[in-house]
Amino acid sequence: MAAVAAERSENTGASAIIDALRARLGERVTTTDAMREQHANTLTWLPSELPDAVVFPENTQEIVEIVKMCEEHNVPIIPFGAGTSLEGHLNAPFGGLSLDFSRMNRILAVHQEDLDCVVEAGVTRNQLNDHLRDTGLFFPVDPGADASIGGMAATRASGTNAVRYGTMRDAVLNLTAVMADGSVVKTAGRARKSSAGYDLTRLLVGSEGTLGIITELTLRLHGIPETILSAVCPFKTIEGACDATITAIQMGLGLARCELLDEVQIEACNIHSKLDLKLTPTMFLEFHGTPASTREQVDTFAEIAADNGGGDYQWAERAEDRNRLWEARHEAYWAARTYRPGAQVIATDVCVPISRLAECVTETKKDIAELGLVAPIVGHIGDGNFHVIPLIDMDNAREVEAVHGFLDRLVGRALAMEGTCTGEHGVGAGKMKYMQAEHGPGVEVMRAIKKTLDPHNIFNPGKVVELT
Amino acid sequence: MAAVAAERSENTGASAIIDALRARLGERVTTTDAMREQHANTLTWLPSELPDAVVFPENTQEIVEIVKMCEEHNVPIIPFGAGTSLEGHLNAPFGGLSLDFSRMNRILAVHQEDLDCVVEAGVTRNQLNDHLRDTGLFFPVDPGADASIGGMAATRASGTNAVRYGTMRDAVLNLTAVMADGSVVKTAGRARKSSAGYDLTRLLVGSEGTLGIITELTLRLHGIPETILSAVCPFKTIEGACDATITAIQMGLGLARCELLDEVQIEACNIHSKLDLKLTPTMFLEFHGTPASTREQVDTFAEIAADNGGGDYQWAERAEDRNRLWEARHEAYWAARTYRPGAQVIATDVCVPISRLAECVTETKKDIAELGLVAPIVGHIGDGNFHVIPLIDMDNAREVEAVHGFLDRLVGRALAMEGTCTGEHGVGAGKMKYMQAEHGPGVEVMRAIKKTLDPHNIFNPGKVVELT
Repeated sequence: MAAVAAERSENTGASAIIDALRARLGERVTTTDAMREQHANTLTWLPSELPDAVVFPENTQEIVEIVKMCEEHNVPIIPFGAGTSLEGHLNAPFGGLSLDFSRMNRILAVHQEDLDCVVEAGVTRNQLNDHLRDTGLFFPVDPGADASIGGMAATRASGTNAVRYGTMRDAVLNLTAVMADGSVVKTAGRARKSSAGYDLTRLLVGSEGTLGIITELTLRLHGIPETILSAVCPFKTIEGACDATITAIQMGLGLARCELLDEVQIEACNIHSKLDLKLTPTMFLEFHGTPASTREQVDTFAEIAADNGGGDYQWAERAEDRNRLWEARHEAYWAARTYRPGAQVIATDVCVPISRLAECVTETKKDIAELGLVAPIVGHIGDGNFHVIPLIDMDNAREVEAVHGFLDRLVGRALAMEGTCTGEHGVGAGKMKYMQAEHGPGVEVMRAIKKTLDPHNIFNPGKVVELT
Repeated sequence: MAAVAAERSENTGASAIIDALRARLGERVTTTDAMREQHANTLTWLPSELPDAVVFPENTQEIVEIVKMCEEHNVPIIPFGAGTSLEGHLNAPFGGLSLDFSRMNRILAVHQEDLDCVVEAGVTRNQLNDHLRDTGLFFPVDPGADASIGGMAATRASGTNAVRYGTMRDAVLNLTAVMADGSVVKTAGRARKSSAGYDLTRLLVGSEGTLGIITELTLRLHGIPETILSAVCPFKTIEGACDATITAIQMGLGLARCELLDEVQIEACNIHSKLDLKLTPTMFLEFHGTPASTREQVDTFAEIAADNGGGDYQWAERAEDRNRLWEARHEAYWAARTYRPGAQVIATDVCVPISRLAECVTETKKDIAELGLVAPIVGHIGDGNFHVIPLIDMDNAREVEAVHGFLDRLVGRALAMEGTCTGEHGVGAGKMKYMQAEHGPGVEVMRAIKKTLDPHNIFNPGKVVELT
């Protein structure tokens, strides 16, 4: 792979600018195999495609200079945050520079009265929440991994508490981006709302580094709730869990987190965390509010659950008790990874209208069973979003072929139900092939925007939309 | 004005297609002066600029045909919903067709379990909420006027309860738009979230008819709250009201509406509605939730208000009592209009970070006083958004000149505080001149998008961004 990438670099002209970059940035430009391999290493089964060099900028102005050089020499730039994306977003199919944001990790301002903060793109969400702890505020978007804020914005990440606090679409008040012509665009001020022109913030959120390079962001924060209650409830059926969730949302119950693990995932968690949970679809809930309002919510949900085939309902308030109740959910990803030792983990996600969720999960489980695959399911049920995690023996050609068909059918099923091919993982390289089916003529609009904003296709080429 | 428009039509080629349109649409094409004048009549002081004809399409396919004809002959198209926009959005400075959506007012589907509905762009928000009444759901975005949903999306409207339910940015799950090349783009499915490519929904929301013509929308709905409590509280100072709001939001108090009227607006309301409110900044609040949680909120806010110079705090639950408490707020716009008989009403808005709101309003009031203007202020205080409503004698040249300078300083003040030139009214023709100051190089990005998606500038030309 390294050899192929080296050949490519000669084609793309990266070699032509590496010396100039070194003269400007010194040791913050590296071309070692180890570093290049690390920066193309994604959590998918997509093979790694290495960049020619890794560059560590320290501020927006340096990125402007890098972009101008790359634009002149047609060298791709792939922004790199924490490397936790799932669809091959960080691959360098045409070589180029991996732009590592780890040195741009300053928290520039916290405005407590405005419930916002300003950060550089390389700040991670745990770093930010540690920093905020004494302010009584927190940043809610939680995709699981300790991702960088820039990467989370670029992929429109969300996670467990999007049902209450929204996704990165909602969390970003403004962002600063370096465009392909080297201009630095700040998309908005810090007002909570604006109707002053095209929404460049939302255009760049979810653009996966293909339209501009995000360097700074202003984020909405929330007050840490006075009380947090957690609950766990096994259900007889997935339909029961979904129906209970629909009822709770219609009633305006303020679910802060609302997760579903299927019985396969529960078994994986039992093994991984030495638990003894019943092997049945199980919901993990969290309620935020005042002592009285959270207690009211937890009681109301108990009634709703009982009406929908919910079983032994447990809830807790103290942090250690909450952690114990939620242990299976917290460890779900790692439990899935170790459930079938040696297997390749293929974490994928789709999202459908919540009325179709039970049907979509049930049909998907039927497909899994018919193929004889091992594939736990974890759902952000309040959003209609679920992850399927096929664990594949890559030496078994039949299994590999089977999972290809399975993934295509999973997306086809979600689209047929007016859903989307990805709720929160993004398109990257892995899901480009589904964009036409999902968006039809909308892909042509995306392509037109890409071509006009990045005419030489230097920004993360080979991702999101196929250029024609 | 009509004569000028007629001359323009010869230049733009509208006359060339009117016969063809008549052949296709019959009486749904009209060129009468009365109809053309009505369709250019906006609620600003900007002079009307009439379209050459008004066309009443009945479905998306007809709009495709109209767009193709207009694209071929370079004829502008200005979408017209309910005609309630405020910044000259409906003017036809280059002539062309006003596309009236009143015949596209079907509610196509209500999905109760998914809390969404599908509507044609001409449906108005009151029509929708009447339709939804029996479902237990409602559409929350409330800009005051009974605007069309398409127009509200096009201008990224919001209003009194955006502090809890968000703006049209949040309310639109997907939309269908006819693009300049005649393609019909549906921007997304009905999933609650998606990370599948560029956010075309948010690009078109707020684009004011300049990028594509919105014909259908899927909207997020909410459960009608079990209990609604309303409250009113006079404050000694604007700072006190703002500080109380900041504290309530930091605590996560679920304010559903949170409005501020200054003492000038209160006086106007006293005269208009024969009330006897104290002439002091006054907050109007609404809380949504369960009986227990709303009662908790109303009590907590009472304490917060008392800590910040709040006076006689009244609250109510029964609808008639709530309406009585809120009468001043409900009638604020009409009260302002009648406060100075014969005056031109200039309704404008800006939005700033909430920590700067008191300062921004106070400086604005100082400017009003120094100029000797009459200008009530009404604020969506929870969002940092406020309206100033100068009432101007247009025959008084000194006053007219004074208000020009006042409006420029108002925007300059908001921008200096990291705010925006418009929180919810949009850019239209009236605020184009502020876009460069607000967005800097971002305007060039907007211009590039406009040029690539509407290369012949047929969609609402002369609005949002100046083309160079």
